[in-house]
Amino acid sequence: MAVLMKGAEAAAGMKEALLAELAAIRGRGIEPKLAVVRVGARDDDLAYERGIRKRFEGLGMAVRVIVLPEDIGQDAFDAEFAWVNGDPQTHGVLLFRPLPGGLSDANARRIIDPRKDVDGMSPINMARVFAGEAEGFAPCTPGAVMELLRHYGVSLEGKSVAVAGRSMVAGRPLAMLMLAANATVTLCHTRTRDLSAVCRSADIVVAAAGRAGMIGADCVTERSVIVDVGINMGRDGKLCGDVDFGEASPLVSMITPVPGGVGALTTSVLARNLLRAARLQI
Amino acid sequence: MAVLMKGAEAAAGMKEALLAELAAIRGRGIEPKLAVVRVGARDDDLAYERGIRKRFEGLGMAVRVIVLPEDIGQDAFDAEFAWVNGDPQTHGVLLFRPLPGGLSDANARRIIDPRKDVDGMSPINMARVFAGEAEGFAPCTPGAVMELLRHYGVSLEGKSVAVAGRSMVAGRPLAMLMLAANATVTLCHTRTRDLSAVCRSADIVVAAAGRAGMIGADCVTERSVIVDVGINMGRDGKLCGDVDFGEASPLVSMITPVPGGVGALTTSVLARNLLRAARLQI
Repeated sequence: MAVLMKGAEAAAGMKEALLAELAAIRGRGIEPKLAVVRVGARDDDLAYERGIRKRFEGLGMAVRVIVLPEDIGQDAFDAEFAWVNGDPQTHGVLLFRPLPGGLSDANARRIIDPRKDVDGMSPINMARVFAGEAEGFAPCTPGAVMELLRHYGVSLEGKSVAVAGRSMVAGRPLAMLMLAANATVTLCHTRTRDLSAVCRSADIVVAAAGRAGMIGADCVTERSVIVDVGINMGRDGKLCGDVDFGEASPLVSMITPVPGGVGALTTSVLARNLLRAARLQI
Repeated sequence: MAVLMKGAEAAAGMKEALLAELAAIRGRGIEPKLAVVRVGARDDDLAYERGIRKRFEGLGMAVRVIVLPEDIGQDAFDAEFAWVNGDPQTHGVLLFRPLPGGLSDANARRIIDPRKDVDGMSPINMARVFAGEAEGFAPCTPGAVMELLRHYGVSLEGKSVAVAGRSMVAGRPLAMLMLAANATVTLCHTRTRDLSAVCRSADIVVAAAGRAGMIGADCVTERSVIVDVGINMGRDGKLCGDVDFGEASPLVSMITPVPGGVGALTTSVLARNLLRAARLQI
C-alpha cells in the first residue's frame, strides 16, 4: 500500500519552527501582518481565504482582507493595490488571481513590492526562482510541494522528475525549485508525446495541469512518487486532483490525496513566506 | 553522413530580413545603435567584440564600444553603466560578462533598461522568458540555437529535448524558449544520473555545460539532432565544443560544428535584438 503524503501532517511538522520564528520577530518589536487582496467574491477565493484565516489564527497571526468590488476600474485597482503595498505595517501581500474582468495581471505584478511578494508574482521573484536563487519568493503551491517531499523524506538529489503542467503558479516555478535541488526535471504538457512513458521513467511525477484523471495507471510504476497539485471539480461534485487516485494509489510507492495533500500545506508555506518577508523588512 | 548545421548559413538566411527591418527603422528617422560595454581586455571578450563589429559592419550598422578599466570601483562602474543606458541615442546595450574583479552582476542587471537589454540579462526579461512571453529579450546564445534549428527545418513541436547545462545565459533560457515552442524539455546537469540514456531517448540534444567531450557516442542515436553550445579550449589549443565531434558526428542525423555553429550566429541574433529594441523605442 502506498504511503499517503498528507498536507496536515507536514503542516503540523512546520508549526513549531513557524512559532519560534514568529516569537523571534516579535522580539524585535515587529508584528508580522499579511494583507489579502480579493476582487469580488469568487467561491475558490473565499475558500482559500477561509483556509488562510484558519491557519493564521492557529499560529496567532493577524490577516487583513481588503475586498475590492468586482467591477473596479484599472486605475482604481492600481491605486488601491499600490496603497496596500505601501503600508509600512503590512509585511506581506497576497492577491487572489486570476483577476476578474479585464484587470491587468501585469500591472499588479509590476506594482507589488518584491520584499512583500509572499506568493512570488513579481518579475523580480520570478527571475530569482528561474535563476535558482534561494532568496526569491516562489509561489506558495510549488513551495508546498517541496515542503511535503521534504517532510516525507523524499530526496530530490539526482532524481528524475516529470512535471506535467507549465503554469507560472505551479509547473514552471516548481521545475526550477526541483532543479535547484539537483533533480533532473522534464517539463511536460498537453503537446508532450507519450506522457505515460515519460512519467513511468521518472522517480517522481507531479501532476499540475488542471485536468482531472490525467495521470492514471498507465503513468505509474511501483517506485513512483506521485504529487497531485490539481484541484478540479469532479463529475460527482466532489473535489479531485489531476491523478486518478483510485486507479493509481494501489500501484505506487507514495502519493498525495486531493483534498488533504499539497493544498492543505499551502497556507503554512504562506505563513513561512510572510515571516521571511517580515525579516527582510526589519 | 550527418547534416552539418552551420551558423554562417543561417546568418546569411537572416541577413535580408535584418536589412529590410533596418531600412524600415531608418525610414522612421532612427539610426539603431548598439553600445558594447567591456571592462578590461579579456581575450574572449575581445574576440566577441571583433565578431560583433564584423557582423554589424556587414549590415551597415554602427557599434560603440565603451571600455572601462579592469580595476574600476563598483560605484564608478554603476555610474558609467547607468550613463550608457540613459543615452537616448543608444538603443541596445551589451555588457560582456562575467564581470572581472568583484563587480556586481546583480547591480548591472538591475541598472540595465529592459527595453535596451539585447542580451536578456535584466530580471524583467528573464521573467518574461521564464513565463514564455514572446516580448522578452532572451540571451543571444539561446536565441541563436532557436534560429539555427528554424533555419535547418528542425521543428520543436512535440519533440523531446535534453538540455545539458543549467546556466542563466544558455541552458535555462533555452529550455524555456523550447518549452514555449511546445517541446518536452529535460534539464540535465552534473548531478543527472545516466545522462547518456536521457540524451539517447531525446530527439534533440543541446550541450551547454562548458565541458569538452561531455557528449560522446554513448549519448546519441542515428536520429539525434545535436546542438553544441560549448566553447572550450581543447588540449591541442584549438577551440572545441562540449560534444566529441569526431566521435558523434558520423553517428547522428544533424549536428553543429564548433567553431562555425551556434557561435557564428550569435551576432546576427544580437543585431535582430537591437532592431527589436530600436522598434520598442520609436
